[in-house]
Amino acid sequence: MFNFQITARSSRTRARTGVLHTRHGSVETPVFMPVGTAATVKSLTPEELLETGVRIILANTYHLYLRPGCETIGLFSGIHRFMNWSGPILTDSGGFQIFSLAKQFKISENGAAFQSHIDGSAHLLTPEKAMDIQLCIGSDIMMCLDDCIPYPATRQQAAEALDRTIAWARRCKNRAEGTTPALFGIVQGGMFEDLRQKAIDALTGIGFHGYAVGGLSVGEPKDRMIELSAFSLQRLPDSKPRYVMGVGTPEDLVEIVSLGADMFDCVLPTRNARNGQLFTETGTVNISNSRYKDDLSPIDPECTCYTCRNYSKAYLRHLFMAKELLAYRLNTIHNVYYYMNLMKTMRAAICKDAFDGFKDTFVRKRQATGYRQRMDAG
Amino acid sequence: MFNFQITARSSRTRARTGVLHTRHGSVETPVFMPVGTAATVKSLTPEELLETGVRIILANTYHLYLRPGCETIGLFSGIHRFMNWSGPILTDSGGFQIFSLAKQFKISENGAAFQSHIDGSAHLLTPEKAMDIQLCIGSDIMMCLDDCIPYPATRQQAAEALDRTIAWARRCKNRAEGTTPALFGIVQGGMFEDLRQKAIDALTGIGFHGYAVGGLSVGEPKDRMIELSAFSLQRLPDSKPRYVMGVGTPEDLVEIVSLGADMFDCVLPTRNARNGQLFTETGTVNISNSRYKDDLSPIDPECTCYTCRNYSKAYLRHLFMAKELLAYRLNTIHNVYYYMNLMKTMRAAICKDAFDGFKDTFVRKRQATGYRQRMDAG
Repeated sequence: MFNFQITARSSRTRARTGVLHTRHGSVETPVFMPVGTAATVKSLTPEELLETGVRIILANTYHLYLRPGCETIGLFSGIHRFMNWSGPILTDSGGFQIFSLAKQFKISENGAAFQSHIDGSAHLLTPEKAMDIQLCIGSDIMMCLDDCIPYPATRQQAAEALDRTIAWARRCKNRAEGTTPALFGIVQGGMFEDLRQKAIDALTGIGFHGYAVGGLSVGEPKDRMIELSAFSLQRLPDSKPRYVMGVGTPEDLVEIVSLGADMFDCVLPTRNARNGQLFTETGTVNISNSRYKDDLSPIDPECTCYTCRNYSKAYLRHLFMAKELLAYRLNTIHNVYYYMNLMKTMRAAICKDAFDGFKDTFVRKRQATGYRQRMDAG
Repeated sequence: MFNFQITARSSRTRARTGVLHTRHGSVETPVFMPVGTAATVKSLTPEELLETGVRIILANTYHLYLRPGCETIGLFSGIHRFMNWSGPILTDSGGFQIFSLAKQFKISENGAAFQSHIDGSAHLLTPEKAMDIQLCIGSDIMMCLDDCIPYPATRQQAAEALDRTIAWARRCKNRAEGTTPALFGIVQGGMFEDLRQKAIDALTGIGFHGYAVGGLSVGEPKDRMIELSAFSLQRLPDSKPRYVMGVGTPEDLVEIVSLGADMFDCVLPTRNARNGQLFTETGTVNISNSRYKDDLSPIDPECTCYTCRNYSKAYLRHLFMAKELLAYRLNTIHNVYYYMNLMKTMRAAICKDAFDGFKDTFVRKRQATGYRQRMDAG
């Protein structure tokens, strides 16, 4: 049901293009997955997702388990029908949200006991339960439950969490045996290369449909994030999809694609849109800036998204200042389109074996507007 | 540029159908105008407005004057281009919002001095300025500035406010002379029939493209609102469009169409949507009710709006409980479509001279679900 084909390689970087085949259709990689936390990519309809170029979304197991819950989702045989999205869905394991959102939590070998951030109710998420929930959600790509450590963490904390992550990955694999969705393992190990190597050895020994690099973008310096991505990506099996979780800025995506990553997810395009931060090829526009009050031009004159084809910065600024619901939506359409278009441009550059040239131009254009970004911040 | 044609009449009621011709196209009446306060009907795009059947919207002069202001709007030659809506726009005068929203206000013969509810800045709205702002907005149908009194008001208060309203109407007419938009006068007079008669005599003496009945739905009993609508509507010129401002519920619209009204506006469909109150032929659904938690059916199985074609009550309830932005939008699409469909059904019934029969059936179906409404409230 699931497989991954590599279709082209960049000769001077490790970038590659490929196709993920899932039971809800195929997806070209490298791919960015917008975050649809509660069975909705905030403010957008499924039709708008398709129109902006989205082909796969990420949904959050923790959120969906708490609300609306598996009983309701089960009535729809999964969230595809519930939310009216017919493309592929990847679900995270719920672990990361327990560590970042739950009121209280306690980790044991058995799993993560936690209290809901919504109503304080007590729950226990075991590796088996993480699989059962993702199966109920109707996920196309499930993630193993992992033990996410804070940054900074000691070597001992990282080593203990890694042992648990590996044991849980084995239990997830056992539970998922015989089911149709793909299952990915998650490389942890904190900021320690040898622990990351141990994770890779153990997970590839168990065997998964794909591998994710987790535990990055948690507060470490950007250079360290890139180093650890590079370290992990080049040691993961070439034939399997590699997914760097929770990353990142446009610059991060370009850099990490060059290191051989195939999949990404991040709240950045959608969350920043709702905060009025709009991505363009030549830098980031802060739409609340008073210099856009009378600006009749679109966010990006080169952009062909619905928002840029129909609305001026002056109108978008007006909607944003007036806290109008349409602001969040038009901004989100633009940012998601920007991310989708960036991935498409990267795929095309890889196919033409021109990725390194693309990368240089991309970085130069975005940096040239340090000027505008400073102006917008001021 | 503006004219009104009557196309059919109901023989057993005063209902009629017609066509308003404006410089931004024609509109069939009776018509309901959704409220687009700040150059946006909250959460919807212009394309969605058209898809739900909207042909004319109302914009609020007070809000647009304060934000983004005439200078910005002027750069776009009006809000049509600013907000990307190419259909007709009716603007109110700004008076009602001054009385209901401004921090402070003081009425004199000259106009209404007030402080902005946004930043406390001081402004003076005169009849002339109300015209200038509406002209700048690019309104297709402008409203005279009127003096809106609270409910209840004494006869003396009502009489004084009416004299001012009439004097202001004359000044508005003078200022608008030679401009292209239509201008409507507003019948005031509080709860006093003889004052309303005086308003009608004075305004028709001045002469306007259409006439509105104002000062209703301000807290008076429903029966009194209907009586005063009936009184005013039957005394206004038959050949001109008649607009009952700020009304109302589906039941109000049906009743007041039968009294000869052609135009309506109200925040009810849009505001109630954002509060989770959804209109159906058989009553009102409160989507937050726990009985919809696992309800796989749409809001109204007979409804053909985008929301009902694609989403279940369980999903809509989930979005609403999670305060997801998509909730407000999908709910708004449904409610606006319901209102548009109701008006269309009324127009068809009038054309077939079957309006009285339609009205009886309509009332019976909506009342039959007192049961569901009580359940939803409980």
